[in-house]
Amino acid sequence: MEKPYVIGMDMGGTNTVFGVVDTRGNVISKSAVKTSSHPEDINLYINDIYVELMKLIEAAGGIEKFKGIGIGAPNGNFYTGNIEFAPNLPWKGVIPFSKLISEKFGIPAALTNDANAAAVGEMTYGAARGMKNFIMITLGTGVGSGIIIDGKVVYGHDGFAGELGHTNAIRNNGRLCGCGKSGCLETYCSATGVARTAREILESTKQDSLLRNVPVEDITSKDVFEAAMEGDEVAKEIFNFTGKILGESLADFVAFSAPEAIVLFGGLAKAGDLILNPIKENMEKNLLPLWRGKIKLFFSDLKEADAAVLGASALGWEI
Amino acid sequence: MEKPYVIGMDMGGTNTVFGVVDTRGNVISKSAVKTSSHPEDINLYINDIYVELMKLIEAAGGIEKFKGIGIGAPNGNFYTGNIEFAPNLPWKGVIPFSKLISEKFGIPAALTNDANAAAVGEMTYGAARGMKNFIMITLGTGVGSGIIIDGKVVYGHDGFAGELGHTNAIRNNGRLCGCGKSGCLETYCSATGVARTAREILESTKQDSLLRNVPVEDITSKDVFEAAMEGDEVAKEIFNFTGKILGESLADFVAFSAPEAIVLFGGLAKAGDLILNPIKENMEKNLLPLWRGKIKLFFSDLKEADAAVLGASALGWEI
Repeated sequence: MEKPYVIGMDMGGTNTVFGVVDTRGNVISKSAVKTSSHPEDINLYINDIYVELMKLIEAAGGIEKFKGIGIGAPNGNFYTGNIEFAPNLPWKGVIPFSKLISEKFGIPAALTNDANAAAVGEMTYGAARGMKNFIMITLGTGVGSGIIIDGKVVYGHDGFAGELGHTNAIRNNGRLCGCGKSGCLETYCSATGVARTAREILESTKQDSLLRNVPVEDITSKDVFEAAMEGDEVAKEIFNFTGKILGESLADFVAFSAPEAIVLFGGLAKAGDLILNPIKENMEKNLLPLWRGKIKLFFSDLKEADAAVLGASALGWEI
Repeated sequence: MEKPYVIGMDMGGTNTVFGVVDTRGNVISKSAVKTSSHPEDINLYINDIYVELMKLIEAAGGIEKFKGIGIGAPNGNFYTGNIEFAPNLPWKGVIPFSKLISEKFGIPAALTNDANAAAVGEMTYGAARGMKNFIMITLGTGVGSGIIIDGKVVYGHDGFAGELGHTNAIRNNGRLCGCGKSGCLETYCSATGVARTAREILESTKQDSLLRNVPVEDITSKDVFEAAMEGDEVAKEIFNFTGKILGESLADFVAFSAPEAIVLFGGLAKAGDLILNPIKENMEKNLLPLWRGKIKLFFSDLKEADAAVLGASALGWEI
């Protein structure tokens, strides 16, 4: 008999969420553990997962009903199944995570990075269903990407393809990035990038703004969003600037792989047209004429909480 | 019996070169016609090709020995077999070139753009033989690219993927490009881009240079190369500037598809280390740490005259 379930697991810096998913993409049950309770020993963390996840597995009829475990993890490498030098996780170096999980549960496991998992989720269950060529951009604390060409995730020679958050948005004197380079797209278009833009604009002008009610060091992208919704001009200028940088970059990505669509995903989606309009305008302006008006651009309609688990789970069917 | 030959055809703005190629990549015979003798009627041009090419085909034992015809052409679309709105050809609009050639010769034909054909040639017969992930950058009158992922050319949703010459090298106030945009990589790193840089530097400084012996409007990239070989400082500065822009762009391309290698091809290759060193230095500086020192960068060793025909011919085997 076909096994009816897979596990999708999304490892974040704070929480690790996992769920039982059926063939139609329903999340049957879901649970989570803290990612960093055991910085000293990853086996204790895996044990936490085992205890929680086995409850869901037993409730679904036992491990023999499960085809595999798909995992999305920061710096996850599909080819090796390892998590390699992830700056936001407590365990350093190279972790053979897919192997550890597979051995613990006794079924196959596959792993990729979180943005690739989100792209697979979008292709399997989201608005990009049926699309064979699209690019997923995840706008969160950082900027990630998952690139789909001919219906498959692009992994490249070493498994690390699709680091579009670290392409040069501003050459020479760009903002310093956590990766050690400067001018990376992520330093402008992530949630933290938006907050950084807010601070720069507030400190370099005297313009009135609702954002001046918040101590400048504490401003978040959420504050900017809320101010923009109330018509604050400075907040709108911040989104226009962010959208300009991102739109220009998206045009370059189109020139690379000529996708049918670019799908945006993550926290910034809440800003809706306030951010989508300047992105679209600046992308169009920078496209070759042959692509103008032809590249779809939209926010993912997958629920953020489910998308990562769903995306990771899609990997579970392929092993 | 396996058919032992294919035709490779490379259509340029001036000449159309074609040759008989065997399974081992030997160009058995070669000939050419002018591309633009018949701007009024493409059928007369196809007839010119037929007359010349049939001589080679007969000498090789007749059309029944040929598996197919592979064509590299500007703005050639692999999916449709059409040449679409090529600015440098005399026939306008959409030309069903693959169909016209196939009907004329009575064997299958396939078509792609010239940079993709060069990439296929490099993968089949060149230094990238055996590589499944690399990017070919053609540096000529323009800047073209052919992207190979998992052993296949990336065509994208519409067949036009790989327009890396039209990614933004300089945002805001970049050089105006023939495509209508500004700041395109091609405006800096093509042969004409190098000549443009030479004029800008000579006009904005008073520095002594061998290049001042040439009327500034007539300077070509060849003049720059010759001056650099004689140790001219301005000429070296021109190559350093060109290499910086290209190296920064290459780092972004690596972040997209994580290739094993980037292969450079075309006229600028003659400048050797004078251009390769600054490209490499600036690419390395802009790579994520995980890729530093790991991405091969070299000039194609295929003879320029043969590579386009060989590359196009490789398509002939696949139909």
